[in-house]
Amino acid sequence: MKIALKEIADLINGKISGPADVTISSVARIDDAKEGELTFLYLSAYEKYFPETKASAIIVKSYFNTSRSNITYIEVNEPDKAFAKIILQYFSPEFPLKGIDKTAFVDETVKLGDNVALGKNVVISAGCKIGDNVKIFHNTVLLENVEVGDDSIIFQNISIRENCKVGKRVIAHPGAVIGSDGFGFNPDEKGVYHKVPQIGNVVIEDDVEIGANVTIDRAAVGSTLIKQGVKIDNLVQIAHNVIVEENTVLASQVGIAGSTKVGKNCILAGQVGVIGHIELVDKTVLIAQSGVSKSIKKPGYYFGSPAKELRKAKVIEAHIRNLPDYSDRIKQLEEEIRNLKEKVNNKT
Amino acid sequence: MKIALKEIADLINGKISGPADVTISSVARIDDAKEGELTFLYLSAYEKYFPETKASAIIVKSYFNTSRSNITYIEVNEPDKAFAKIILQYFSPEFPLKGIDKTAFVDETVKLGDNVALGKNVVISAGCKIGDNVKIFHNTVLLENVEVGDDSIIFQNISIRENCKVGKRVIAHPGAVIGSDGFGFNPDEKGVYHKVPQIGNVVIEDDVEIGANVTIDRAAVGSTLIKQGVKIDNLVQIAHNVIVEENTVLASQVGIAGSTKVGKNCILAGQVGVIGHIELVDKTVLIAQSGVSKSIKKPGYYFGSPAKELRKAKVIEAHIRNLPDYSDRIKQLEEEIRNLKEKVNNKT
Amino acid sequence: MKIALKEIADLINGKISGPADVTISSVARIDDAKEGELTFLYLSAYEKYFPETKASAIIVKSYFNTSRSNITYIEVNEPDKAFAKIILQYFSPEFPLKGIDKTAFVDETVKLGDNVALGKNVVISAGCKIGDNVKIFHNTVLLENVEVGDDSIIFQNISIRENCKVGKRVIAHPGAVIGSDGFGFNPDEKGVYHKVPQIGNVVIEDDVEIGANVTIDRAAVGSTLIKQGVKIDNLVQIAHNVIVEENTVLASQVGIAGSTKVGKNCILAGQVGVIGHIELVDKTVLIAQSGVSKSIKKPGYYFGSPAKELRKAKVIEAHIRNLPDYSDRIKQLEEEIRNLKEKVNNKT
Repeated sequence: MKIALKEIADLINGKISGPADVTISSVARIDDAKEGELTFLYLSAYEKYFPETKASAIIVKSYFNTSRSNITYIEVNEPDKAFAKIILQYFSPEFPLKGIDKTAFVDETVKLGDNVALGKNVVISAGCKIGDNVKIFHNTVLLENVEVGDDSIIFQNISIRENCKVGKRVIAHPGAVIGSDGFGFNPDEKGVYHKVPQIGNVVIEDDVEIGANVTIDRAAVGSTLIKQGVKIDNLVQIAHNVIVEENTVLASQVGIAGSTKVGKNCILAGQVGVIGHIELVDKTVLIAQSGVSKSIKKPGYYFGSPAKELRKAKVIEAHIRNLPDYSDRIKQLEEEIRNLKEKVNNKT
Repeated sequence: MKIALKEIADLINGKISGPADVTISSVARIDDAKEGELTFLYLSAYEKYFPETKASAIIVKSYFNTSRSNITYIEVNEPDKAFAKIILQYFSPEFPLKGIDKTAFVDETVKLGDNVALGKNVVISAGCKIGDNVKIFHNTVLLENVEVGDDSIIFQNISIRENCKVGKRVIAHPGAVIGSDGFGFNPDEKGVYHKVPQIGNVVIEDDVEIGANVTIDRAAVGSTLIKQGVKIDNLVQIAHNVIVEENTVLASQVGIAGSTKVGKNCILAGQVGVIGHIELVDKTVLIAQSGVSKSIKKPGYYFGSPAKELRKAKVIEAHIRNLPDYSDRIKQLEEEIRNLKEKVNNKT
Repeated sequence: MKIALKEIADLINGKISGPADVTISSVARIDDAKEGELTFLYLSAYEKYFPETKASAIIVKSYFNTSRSNITYIEVNEPDKAFAKIILQYFSPEFPLKGIDKTAFVDETVKLGDNVALGKNVVISAGCKIGDNVKIFHNTVLLENVEVGDDSIIFQNISIRENCKVGKRVIAHPGAVIGSDGFGFNPDEKGVYHKVPQIGNVVIEDDVEIGANVTIDRAAVGSTLIKQGVKIDNLVQIAHNVIVEENTVLASQVGIAGSTKVGKNCILAGQVGVIGHIELVDKTVLIAQSGVSKSIKKPGYYFGSPAKELRKAKVIEAHIRNLPDYSDRIKQLEEEIRNLKEKVNNKT
């Protein structure tokens, strides 16, 4: 591939400075780029690679000090987003999976859309409906009556259990499990647990992305619901009857317990845990490893286990680091009080 | 399905009040129920849905204020358990998987029980023994000499490695891995790690449930042992040579390190971590995200990382929230001492 | 199998004491051993089993009190490592998987080394290169252009996506996902997230072990890099563009966020989380459940969330446990100051 730098600059509304007659064959990280490649600089931590990068062109912020003359600059406001736009335009991966592999099983009752691709050993059980342009990769299994909307990509080794619904333009990564039984048991008087059958399903709306080895349990009754535009990272656990509202982001290894409702546009960072039967208001942001045991009613940043408002958590963390000092000062005060009491008493 | 409400009330020893001539077609959550459906009310947080629910009948506690007249009540002591009993009786899912699929591989040395169902592309390796009425879903793999007891359900995309034993009425959810190598390495003087072959197995006793994408490592030597009635939620990690005693519950994303023994009737809530080579006494309850680094010898509730008795942990957490106040008061005391000293010294 | 104890003692440079004319049929844990078996004693917690063990021989430290006469001792410096050496020599598992199963798919463009074993329903896509003596177990999928080096073992139900490279003598356990998309999205002004295509790959160097259900994301651009000798336990998450240097150990359920670099010979214990875009210096040791939000520049032990130097963290934890006492003492001091002030003022 050979792309004129001018065409790239036009795409991202960037201003070229330096040698303009450059063609780009690929994109690369600044510490990794070779001649003919385009890179970008966004975080200051990576500026140390600038003097040495072999990239032919670099996307930078408009106020960047363009000190080298043997590289071409494209100046924009947000280099990271501009770079992403270029990748999307010129370098988006194309998956060669095409057609229905002869080892794929498609029950005779299945409704397949146009241009569906099914990989090897795929199992599409009775009653499933698969939309147009859907790709389902090798060894993935859909049990009965699963629906998958148009243009979705379901990677390999994925399990979707019966009656679950997946929207349009959904991407599910390898090993994801959708619709496993919720964790519902009632103990008897001897402490033996008896399973409560989980008869609900999972509904995944449009434009959701589901990470590798994620688990989303089916509802006890009703639906576990992942709404439009939610992005779920690897190894996340979503329990039965959870609702995650639009455009919320769940980073890796987050766990959300049963019947909890997470609002819109929330961000739950890595390894956050949320207890069951509570609600997180829209625009709640939870810092990594936070644990939430009560509903959050005010948008904002929270941290800690149990989670506190971030500003308070930081103040408290500073106090915790001061504890050895406080302890010393209490001892010192006790000593001084003793001395002072003695002094005062001696004078009586 | 049409079930007379009277029949349902009899099943759960409930008392009907309101219109008795009702038939039930399905069950639903209170915020989701339609006409002809039965729902229940257990947690007070859901009472807000009571005035509007379209359910035809509702299971409630006996002291519930039966203020609406256009709904039929069934009064019981424990509405949640009664509801579960109804689901179990009338709405338990039936899996249509039947017979041995022609794409399933069954080694000629395998002993298959009566009425076994094997899905597509299932692999049952040499020396395996599969009990009566076992269902093994598509793309699941059993390596050599695995045993599965009667009436167990092994869902799709599961891996069970050689020599592992699974009891009766076990349910294993998609993506679970049973018998992967324990994490055993010895470092040499250069810091290079050398693998210790893991030659033990995993033994899962009867009535255990294993969540989606759970990992249970085989013992280095001997057996990793999950005893009768243990319930394991999704994405739990159980390391080599761990023993989990009867009727213990491990919630999602719990991790238990090597050779640790978890007692009977324990509850480890979500994301709890337990270090290796320790013991948790029977009836230990660990609140979510707790981290345990020493044996627990007294039954009860524990919280925190490192874990403390819950009562103590709560007291300490309250003190931690007061730290800014304590800091102010120490400063104030220092000020007052200074003033007082001056005053006393001035008088000498 | 019958091995003369003398041969075993020679292998581990051990000194036999007690009856020397013993043959060993197997190895076992001290609490589990039967006649004819060899066991070992390393941790003092297991000494309680010594008086009763039925083992015929036991590997002990040289200063061990050899009080029983009906058991043969082999004295060495490090019984655990000696035992591992014996297992490695005599009891290493042999996997019977041989040849290319007729249900395995191998694209015509694939380069297969000598003596490759491919299990049932394995998918090896176009452009892949598989080294000599590689074993790939049932239902594992390699997308296009994946390379696997000599002598590697890739267990069942594993997904390796396009263009990823796996070195020699690598072991990957069931359910691992290598090369899933990194978690890269840009939000627009409405809070809707737009996917950034992830066009890099994952490079796994030689002698790496990858646990069950681990997820390693492909780089946004460039490579996510796992260097030689790294050992990764089950359910670990490694995000896009992470670099893990040589001989580092990641215990179960660790999560490392994007673009972070973990140095050589580090140990990250269970459930540790590390934020993105930071660096951990060589020989960093993180205690279980620690959370790291800033680069660590000094080798050593760290604990807590946020992580502190272990020595400091222990001091602070002790102070935290003393908080109720500090609170009492502050109250007491305030009381005494009040009394003292009164006394002093009364005298004026």
